Amino acid sequence: MPISNKQIIYAQRPAPAIDPRLSGGTFAVKQTAIEEPIPADKVLVRIHYLSLDPAMRQWLTATRSYIAPVEIGDVMRSNAIAQIVGVGSSLKNEFKLGEWLVAGTGWQEYALLSAQAAKAQRVVVPEGCTPSDAMSVLGLTGLTAYFGLLEVGQVQNGDTVVVSGAAGATGMVAGQIAKIKGAKRVVGLAGTPDKCRFLTEELGFDTAINYKDKDWRKQLKAACPEYINVYFDNVGGEILDACLGLAAPFSRFAICGHISQYSAAQPEGPRSIMMLIGQRVTMRGFIVFDYAKQYPEALKNLGQWLVEGKIKRKDHIIKGGLEACPQGLVDLYAGANTGKMMVEVAPFSQAIQSKQGERL
Amino acid sequence: MPISNKQIIYAQRPAPAIDPRLSGGTFAVKQTAIEEPIPADKVLVRIHYLSLDPAMRQWLTATRSYIAPVEIGDVMRSNAIAQIVGVGSSLKNEFKLGEWLVAGTGWQEYALLSAQAAKAQRVVVPEGCTPSDAMSVLGLTGLTAYFGLLEVGQVQNGDTVVVSGAAGATGMVAGQIAKIKGAKRVVGLAGTPDKCRFLTEELGFDTAINYKDKDWRKQLKAACPEYINVYFDNVGGEILDACLGLAAPFSRFAICGHISQYSAAQPEGPRSIMMLIGQRVTMRGFIVFDYAKQYPEALKNLGQWLVEGKIKRKDHIIKGGLEACPQGLVDLYAGANTGKMMVEVAPFSQAIQSKQGERL
Repeated sequence: MPISNKQIIYAQRPAPAIDPRLSGGTFAVKQTAIEEPIPADKVLVRIHYLSLDPAMRQWLTATRSYIAPVEIGDVMRSNAIAQIVGVGSSLKNEFKLGEWLVAGTGWQEYALLSAQAAKAQRVVVPEGCTPSDAMSVLGLTGLTAYFGLLEVGQVQNGDTVVVSGAAGATGMVAGQIAKIKGAKRVVGLAGTPDKCRFLTEELGFDTAINYKDKDWRKQLKAACPEYINVYFDNVGGEILDACLGLAAPFSRFAICGHISQYSAAQPEGPRSIMMLIGQRVTMRGFIVFDYAKQYPEALKNLGQWLVEGKIKRKDHIIKGGLEACPQGLVDLYAGANTGKMMVEVAPFSQAIQSKQGERL
Repeated sequence: MPISNKQIIYAQRPAPAIDPRLSGGTFAVKQTAIEEPIPADKVLVRIHYLSLDPAMRQWLTATRSYIAPVEIGDVMRSNAIAQIVGVGSSLKNEFKLGEWLVAGTGWQEYALLSAQAAKAQRVVVPEGCTPSDAMSVLGLTGLTAYFGLLEVGQVQNGDTVVVSGAAGATGMVAGQIAKIKGAKRVVGLAGTPDKCRFLTEELGFDTAINYKDKDWRKQLKAACPEYINVYFDNVGGEILDACLGLAAPFSRFAICGHISQYSAAQPEGPRSIMMLIGQRVTMRGFIVFDYAKQYPEALKNLGQWLVEGKIKRKDHIIKGGLEACPQGLVDLYAGANTGKMMVEVAPFSQAIQSKQGERL
């Protein structure tokens, strides 16, 4: 009997903001089915949690980038925490029912994966970590923070580090790694008083600034009396401009995201660009995938810090199933989340029992 | 008897453009004198040629930078080709009359230098080179091109290299070094058809584009079918923006100058800044002084390329004496020059004979 599989597909281009309506909006619901038995060389996974990421808006635009855009009519691209619920006849010795993966399934309830794809994405969560860590601190989110701060930002003991989008999934990890690495001052920018309190009281940021305050530029200057050695940029726009104005000599600007600009019809360039010369700033854009060879070492460190409590995690789980994805994405751009935003498609309580009884 | 010494001092801040008038403008003429005998620990130099440089506009503004601004009332800062015409009584064994220096004398006819300053700036021009080379290809200009292209730009065999301000003193050297280093395509941007012809016909650039042409962006795109691996930026603004839009993966943007923006009341940031992420661009501002330890090796290479004819030089000498400096600077920003712009304060024919008969 076919397995009913609901999908959310990319229906029409945003113009330029995403329209979250399920009818007539950017995305549309599509009812499909997966035939059984599944192909001999595939595994069938059930999606439990879908990741919502700032990069998604860029995937909807046909610009030259590190990744091909999502095509109209395709299932919307997304990572997911998923469980193997079916194994093709030729793969019975390689996969077991109940194994967990973090896979690029897209916005749907089920997905068929090749053996190669499934193998690369097996989840190994260290003792003391939680299932959703595999898609946040121990997933691409944490890895992005790790490589952005250490490889691109080259953070040094005694540095002043500024993180924008600091209450977001990547930003909060970046700021905590900065503290672990001996930064003298870690300053976070976020968009609500609650987020700011969370950064200083829970995560150990030295200062948090609400960028919606009128005098945020003044606060930022006061928080960086020795200027900025490392800036971890998730937002672009005005905040990037202000940080350039406060760049220390030979500072490193790790450009991770530009969330303030993704839906702008006319993006804004940093007017303080001339500081690049006077302060010999290195500004480098990066993509986590370029560091794939170093993932194992990074995950070892991140896992250890998580277990030791040196990194605290926070997830923002949206209940409401697959159909909550489009509105969730709009909320993400509006800054609704503190921590990693995920949509719950099926709770962990509905997971099948792994035959190995493996923990997740 | 005192030596009459005319100076040009910084009189009032530009607002924001430089006003070249000698009365009521940005600068003013001041008549001073140097007493004889000169102090025992100084050398007296006579200035022959003064360098006009795009960085000068920035020195007039009190922004945080790599160098303190020139203060109102000070002699305008500038490098010069100068000759020792007097040696303090305690330095007779260290300096000889007639020795040549490239020294930061400022805009005046004569200057007193400390022994330390004078020693560091002795001119050594290789056989086959001309006196003015010491302030252009074999001076800070050539060194800026050298380190910008090789250390910051990391040019590789087969690269597409774009140089803006390509007919300027630094740009023309940068483009020629790119060819020496095996760049596949060297594309220059300049502001007149004559400059463009000069770049392709005399200097070996593969393509030259007049950025005043209406379709310059289209021409630039056509000239870079494999996108841009190294961009040597002298101008900022629109051209930097266009080059970012054409950045190749992992490209290097060496930010040397922003001549299009120095006199702008509100500088313009590059709107294509998001390409930094998608293409993992490294954008780095630099100052030649940071590479001082590597000057000897660089000068050896530049001297050799000059003698071998692999680098061609061109100077733009303004006759008219010291008073021609302010208007010369305005003309520099208007793009009047092809090659290194200098003001002749005293021709070489007026130099005193060196006692060593050393050549210059």
